Amino acid sequence: MAEVGEHKLISLIGEQLKAEASSTDFESALDKPVDVEVEVDSGDDAAVLNLGSDRVVVSTDVLVEERHFRVRWSSGIDVGVKVAAANLADIAAMGASPVALVVALVLPGTTPLSWVLDLARGLAREAARAGAIVVGGDISGGEAISVTATAIGRLETEAKAIRLDGAQVGDQVAIAGRLGWSEAGLTILSRGFSSPKVIVEAHRQPSPDYVAALAAAKDAHAMTDISDGLVADLAHIARASNVAIEADYSLLPQSDELVQASAALSVELSGWLLGGGEDHGFLATFPSSAQLPTGFTKVGTVVPRTEGTAIVSVLGPEGVEGSGGEPMDLRPFRGYVHY
Amino acid sequence: MAEVGEHKLISLIGEQLKAEASSTDFESALDKPVDVEVEVDSGDDAAVLNLGSDRVVVSTDVLVEERHFRVRWSSGIDVGVKVAAANLADIAAMGASPVALVVALVLPGTTPLSWVLDLARGLAREAARAGAIVVGGDISGGEAISVTATAIGRLETEAKAIRLDGAQVGDQVAIAGRLGWSEAGLTILSRGFSSPKVIVEAHRQPSPDYVAALAAAKDAHAMTDISDGLVADLAHIARASNVAIEADYSLLPQSDELVQASAALSVELSGWLLGGGEDHGFLATFPSSAQLPTGFTKVGTVVPRTEGTAIVSVLGPEGVEGSGGEPMDLRPFRGYVHY
Repeated sequence: MAEVGEHKLISLIGEQLKAEASSTDFESALDKPVDVEVEVDSGDDAAVLNLGSDRVVVSTDVLVEERHFRVRWSSGIDVGVKVAAANLADIAAMGASPVALVVALVLPGTTPLSWVLDLARGLAREAARAGAIVVGGDISGGEAISVTATAIGRLETEAKAIRLDGAQVGDQVAIAGRLGWSEAGLTILSRGFSSPKVIVEAHRQPSPDYVAALAAAKDAHAMTDISDGLVADLAHIARASNVAIEADYSLLPQSDELVQASAALSVELSGWLLGGGEDHGFLATFPSSAQLPTGFTKVGTVVPRTEGTAIVSVLGPEGVEGSGGEPMDLRPFRGYVHY
Repeated sequence: MAEVGEHKLISLIGEQLKAEASSTDFESALDKPVDVEVEVDSGDDAAVLNLGSDRVVVSTDVLVEERHFRVRWSSGIDVGVKVAAANLADIAAMGASPVALVVALVLPGTTPLSWVLDLARGLAREAARAGAIVVGGDISGGEAISVTATAIGRLETEAKAIRLDGAQVGDQVAIAGRLGWSEAGLTILSRGFSSPKVIVEAHRQPSPDYVAALAAAKDAHAMTDISDGLVADLAHIARASNVAIEADYSLLPQSDELVQASAALSVELSGWLLGGGEDHGFLATFPSSAQLPTGFTKVGTVVPRTEGTAIVSVLGPEGVEGSGGEPMDLRPFRGYVHY
């Protein structure tokens, strides 16, 4: 797997799936052709299936011990909340109502029962917070803990799926929820600290604002949850919509807690705000005339894409040496693409 | 996790999920109560969600390297087919039509790209065989390969979900598809052999008879796919339906290939037929008057449960020393329960 990056791998897998599904090299068990209409496929936050009158939205995410969480830093409840939130936010980011979760667990023999039951509590709690319920699962042994959750959502008959590719030139770009908190919490834990508690807790248990996402569904042209970091997720929307996005650093929500923590740890605040994912806040674009739904703050504007310029740019804060009103250097951030 | 068995663990998790979902210790993000109706929950092959007019059926399964497959014995295609078949069979066993799969992969850095693309081919191929399509997924790094597939199915408005708990006294018990082949193939590979090829292939790529399962949905009182072995899955139906089942060994499908392989390897054929799972054949009960659908063979009868006797019994074959017409000793088989 060293041969290709994740993005390329996903694209190669997609080609393979399409080629095989349309192949006639194997015998189909059924006379009928595949009759499900896939409205939105896996390139977006979640897939949308049209089953007739209702539409079903599906998303899956896997968290692996030592890659996405550490048992010495996160309780079972924390991990349950985290994997549920990651999935449920994907459903809400399509403008769909979360309905159900199924969960597949891989558990080493050494995992304490209490940890597993706490995991179940975390899953159920976050599901309930989003209006959903855990309806099934599977368990296997294995060398490291992994938790795969699959969320199911519903889109009403008349409702529009809010995709990545709907942003239009002139749109307001806005975000809802915490930005950079999870990454800041991880930095704090990595340095061996456990406070400020409110930031560490934000890393352990992300708390997506599902209400804001569902309210945004009425007007939003495009939406995603911020799981890879603001720059990366701005780029996802810009690339899919064939537009560029200009954000303004001074418009980003900068809480006193994060400002103080960045000073105390001598860490650049901008790294957390522009690169920190996993808070699962929501990022959406709205018509210029729209009133933003409760919970959303404007952070930028959709502009035409032009040859030779970046699809995402962030105007630096004034008064900071070397960046006053100038575009910031986004090269350190995942998803940075220069055209 | 040494403290409890898998069955007990699932039941404890279920209690935890229920307790937490009805708890008021956390703030729900939404005003509305959870409004999904769960018709069938996780104790059955798959969960059934009533979303209004349509019903959605969901099942998830995880396969872990060295636990469920070995890369030296199974290609990427084999593993893709296997995980897809395990999930899609769960959907069909509810009497529902498979619609879609999402797949979460954990891949070590050493996994060859070609293996991953073969995996995608296997997933797409088996999905297409069942009338479904792969619509999304997630990928993470990790120490061992694991593949979690979640299948989505559809139940028509008027259709009945075929549950484990519907068997009625007097019902015919019947099976469709191969029995014991996957286990026999595993025995062959474990002994260092690679033929007979047809049996080894049956282990590598199970081939559930989705057509038979969907045909059975019209009349069947209860249905499941045989994933844990015939005795274990008969016990699942008997326990859930509060009945007992009497099967007749001489009625089980005994192909020449398996008979010869058991003789050549000096392995008891009965072990494969009664204990071998993972062929994902279908096991169903039908009214005594019903004509069995194409593909199904009668293997026994549903009888009343009586105190002090086993919920599953299998009448031995005549002419075999010590078992002629007598109930066989089922204690070696998973799921054996004596009351």
